Amino acid sequence: MSSVDESARAAEILKKLRGSIDNIDAALVHMLAERFKCTQAVGELKASHDLPPADPLREEQQIARLRKLALDADLDPAFAEKFLNFLIEEVIRNHKALRA
Amino acid sequence: MSSVDESARAAEILKKLRGSIDNIDAALVHMLAERFKCTQAVGELKASHDLPPADPLREEQQIARLRKLALDADLDPAFAEKFLNFLIEEVIRNHKALRA
Repeated sequence: MSSVDESARAAEILKKLRGSIDNIDAALVHMLAERFKCTQAVGELKASHDLPPADPLREEQQIARLRKLALDADLDPAFAEKFLNFLIEEVIRNHKALRA
Repeated sequence: MSSVDESARAAEILKKLRGSIDNIDAALVHMLAERFKCTQAVGELKASHDLPPADPLREEQQIARLRKLALDADLDPAFAEKFLNFLIEEVIRNHKALRA
């Protein structure tokens, strides 16, 4: 193949991969929207029953479970943990705002 | 209702909500695993064609699109943007590692 053909082929593959990434991102945004509906309800429940916003034992269980799921799915478990911490941080920020 | 009934009912609702959060997290981890397969392929393609790891124009388009999707899904668009930046950071780290 000429290098022009080669570049055109690479551009085509890149376009397809980006289409898949965009589809996955749309799915992720919709799952996250649902997740925050659930954590919002948890926050309201905790606020009305005067329960603490953070729950270290629950977080520990979530991290262990997600690391295992990540391994099975061929995702870096350290990244899965970082991702969960990223979500939990946002949730706790929202829970504190609910009380304020 | 007595306050014991009330607490038992709150614990039951909390358990259900956490079950939903766990299901959503499993879905998220699997979607992320697929997303990293795609970005890994993009990284390999970029490395073999000597293309730069970051692509600011593409990132701008992704952010605008995800903010719009987030709004439609009732998710904070600022959070959606933060989430995408979190993913892109990881992807760029991986792409740089591929070249190293």
